[in-house]
Amino acid sequence: MELLIPLDSESKMPLYEQIYRHIRKEIREGALGAGEKLPSSRILAENLKVSRSTVQMAYDQLLAEGYMETIPCRGCFVSRIEGLVGVEAVGQQGGKLTDGEESAGRDFPNPSDRGFSEKGNPLIDFSPRGIDLEKFPFSVWRKLNRDILVDGNRELFQAGDPRGELSLRREIRTYLHSARGVNCQEDQIIVGAGSEYLLMLLSRILGPKHRIAMENPTYKQAYRVLSGEGYDVVPVDMDHSGMRADLLKKSGADIAYVMPSHQYPMGVVMPITRRQELLAWAWREEERFIIEDDYDSEFRYKGIPVPALQGMDQKERVIYMGTFSKSIAPAIRVGFLVLPRTLLPLYRERAAFYASTVSRIDQNVLCQFMVGGHYERHLNRMRALYRGKHDALLTALKPLEREFEIQGENAGLHVLMTSRKGIAEERLVELANEMGVKVYGLSAYFIRQEQNHYPPTVILGYASLTIEQIQNGASQLLRAWKDVEKC
Amino acid sequence: MELLIPLDSESKMPLYEQIYRHIRKEIREGALGAGEKLPSSRILAENLKVSRSTVQMAYDQLLAEGYMETIPCRGCFVSRIEGLVGVEAVGQQGGKLTDGEESAGRDFPNPSDRGFSEKGNPLIDFSPRGIDLEKFPFSVWRKLNRDILVDGNRELFQAGDPRGELSLRREIRTYLHSARGVNCQEDQIIVGAGSEYLLMLLSRILGPKHRIAMENPTYKQAYRVLSGEGYDVVPVDMDHSGMRADLLKKSGADIAYVMPSHQYPMGVVMPITRRQELLAWAWREEERFIIEDDYDSEFRYKGIPVPALQGMDQKERVIYMGTFSKSIAPAIRVGFLVLPRTLLPLYRERAAFYASTVSRIDQNVLCQFMVGGHYERHLNRMRALYRGKHDALLTALKPLEREFEIQGENAGLHVLMTSRKGIAEERLVELANEMGVKVYGLSAYFIRQEQNHYPPTVILGYASLTIEQIQNGASQLLRAWKDVEKC
Repeated sequence: MELLIPLDSESKMPLYEQIYRHIRKEIREGALGAGEKLPSSRILAENLKVSRSTVQMAYDQLLAEGYMETIPCRGCFVSRIEGLVGVEAVGQQGGKLTDGEESAGRDFPNPSDRGFSEKGNPLIDFSPRGIDLEKFPFSVWRKLNRDILVDGNRELFQAGDPRGELSLRREIRTYLHSARGVNCQEDQIIVGAGSEYLLMLLSRILGPKHRIAMENPTYKQAYRVLSGEGYDVVPVDMDHSGMRADLLKKSGADIAYVMPSHQYPMGVVMPITRRQELLAWAWREEERFIIEDDYDSEFRYKGIPVPALQGMDQKERVIYMGTFSKSIAPAIRVGFLVLPRTLLPLYRERAAFYASTVSRIDQNVLCQFMVGGHYERHLNRMRALYRGKHDALLTALKPLEREFEIQGENAGLHVLMTSRKGIAEERLVELANEMGVKVYGLSAYFIRQEQNHYPPTVILGYASLTIEQIQNGASQLLRAWKDVEKC
Repeated sequence: MELLIPLDSESKMPLYEQIYRHIRKEIREGALGAGEKLPSSRILAENLKVSRSTVQMAYDQLLAEGYMETIPCRGCFVSRIEGLVGVEAVGQQGGKLTDGEESAGRDFPNPSDRGFSEKGNPLIDFSPRGIDLEKFPFSVWRKLNRDILVDGNRELFQAGDPRGELSLRREIRTYLHSARGVNCQEDQIIVGAGSEYLLMLLSRILGPKHRIAMENPTYKQAYRVLSGEGYDVVPVDMDHSGMRADLLKKSGADIAYVMPSHQYPMGVVMPITRRQELLAWAWREEERFIIEDDYDSEFRYKGIPVPALQGMDQKERVIYMGTFSKSIAPAIRVGFLVLPRTLLPLYRERAAFYASTVSRIDQNVLCQFMVGGHYERHLNRMRALYRGKHDALLTALKPLEREFEIQGENAGLHVLMTSRKGIAEERLVELANEMGVKVYGLSAYFIRQEQNHYPPTVILGYASLTIEQIQNGASQLLRAWKDVEKC
């Protein structure tokens, strides 16, 4: 088949993105059907009179997002994608987290909800921790598990590589490269049981004497772990672009822990200029590092995904951290570090003796989940699903837009609402609770309360709620907050 | 049925042990057949004119070892035990560890063997790290996995209790109580991905300022982890009873890390008197603790198992550590801590926010493996299997007994051979290697080489070898070492 793609060389949009968007549109609208073969990148490049790498970038993106699949030695084909178009009806059970689980998702200091408000009304909980497990491809996961546990695989019960299975690290590398622009080799990847463990391991590699700057407010769970490791952790204020580079310089820190793709909790997507400033800071002195926590980079609703900071780093100073907790499920307990090459000798000396914390069976199941394209398809489904919930929430909150500013809505699984009238955070939380709706105050995310200079803001996570719950919850919030005056 | 058990009240052997041994013998010899119901402890106690708790202790031991099973509300029954009697023929593949796995089993500083000697001869590797996976009940594990991954179990993909699944902690508690005499509640148990991670977590609970005494020689992997945590680790010499209590007192340590059930690498089983001395040391001052690493307590060839130190501790000063790495498989990555109640407030304050490092699916598979009696049966099989290998090795080494003293042979999965003539360790290793046999020098297990006051000693692990390999290896050792003189 021949693809006719109208390219505009005057446009600000890069050519690869125009190609990617065109093909994606054709697939979404059904003009390109499941199973249809796509032209090779060489042929399409010739037809479009662009370089082959331009086409390859577009293809990589489509592959990463699961729109296309490769069959070895045969070519690229349009994937079978269910439920991509429009908003899906979602089942009753939203996959809400129960308590005792505080530490696995993004943290929250009040884990004691049991699905009911204090008055006994059914509670709609806009927890920023939850994810939706309704669409998890359970039968695929089960089948992969069964396939891996065949008798011939006895060696899987022997101890494996401390860094994780090579096959899995290869898949992670390929995925990170195409979906996140991360450049690394397999030997830079360390698979481990969750980001907390990986931070503990990283602290063994980095050694004890560092000052670590964290965004203010930040992901408190990481703060607790890094403080527990004995580091001097200093909060650095943010502006609308993320961590302020001028304050970082003044902080005396030699390591910066940042979440450029979707800061938690502020939802800021760090623009390219700030990324460059942070990299320049790291490059200026020997032994400075940036820890890039890319935890929910998979979900983005506006613009195309911003590549990771790691991919821009020319001096091996970025330590990249990722996890499958949000994109697959919290309980599979698999995350990974991508170490810059500068740290590999230290890893070998100080931390290579730590055995892997993830069972080889689980690693192999995850690997096959990726190899078989299930991961990309799953992400695709989840993107569509979360986009639907995201849109439903924003639509339902529209009547409040004169009273509240909504932020952080371009990516991730939560939004922030800031009261334009200055109604206190505790009051907003309490009024919502009286209507059977649980929302979360921003103040809990500050390392030091006195450094909270933000106007009153609450956080609404929507991942674990159904569209119906989101709409009901939002209309209760309307009743709770509409026309409330500052007292 | 009525059991006629001849009891000798004059014997030094406790009554419960006589009962236990009699019933075990009857089961082993087939006089009591699989599925046969045993009398209740009350009835047997009446018949034998002993206290009910005496019978219960015997029953607990038989249950723990898998000779008996309980069916709720129906009673106790003789288990179906395969391959208990005599030595089994073992398959070709001994489940040998390949390299890159150093850190998961007991460590060894020379991981680079690839199954061949330097001269290219096939190598018989008496690695002290290996375990035998030939008899692993693969199909049971697969079936449990499949059963757990049913659609209804969707919640298993949500994050779970940071301490581990309650159901699994219950099983561990029951097992530890009956098989190891450990007294604890479920809330004292923390499940984690391997003993290295658990030591890291423990260091978060204990805080940074401690001096830790370790046996000299010791398990170097634990030494590396504890040093990596920044502790001042001091080696304390051993005698034939284990760590010397007098030297421990002088060491200035406030924490002692010991392996009382089968010291690694010396193989010493700590007698009751030394255990009491260590406990007295811990009790004497506030904030002193003993870390009891009970890693291969499951395998014992002489005498009945010595209960854990933890069970003798009346002041909540023993931190018990166990693992399924040796008893099931290294790659399942499940170990556990049993915290004394005195440490629970510190755990809650400093470490309860660390999410569990073991996937809930794996935890549930392991739990069902225990609930269904598979673990006990597996241990039973492995005991018989390892006993066969142990006996074969000792028999085959007999011709060397005038030249070597053999130690540590009462338990565990390795023995030590000390040259009575003072032939240097390196020479023994080299001579063996020339005959295609790999043995391991004791000197690698000392934290500081200058503190090795032992006569030249090598270590032979036999778990991953077949009986035939053990016999061939031993006869090569005879050729290598017989009549060698000190040069």
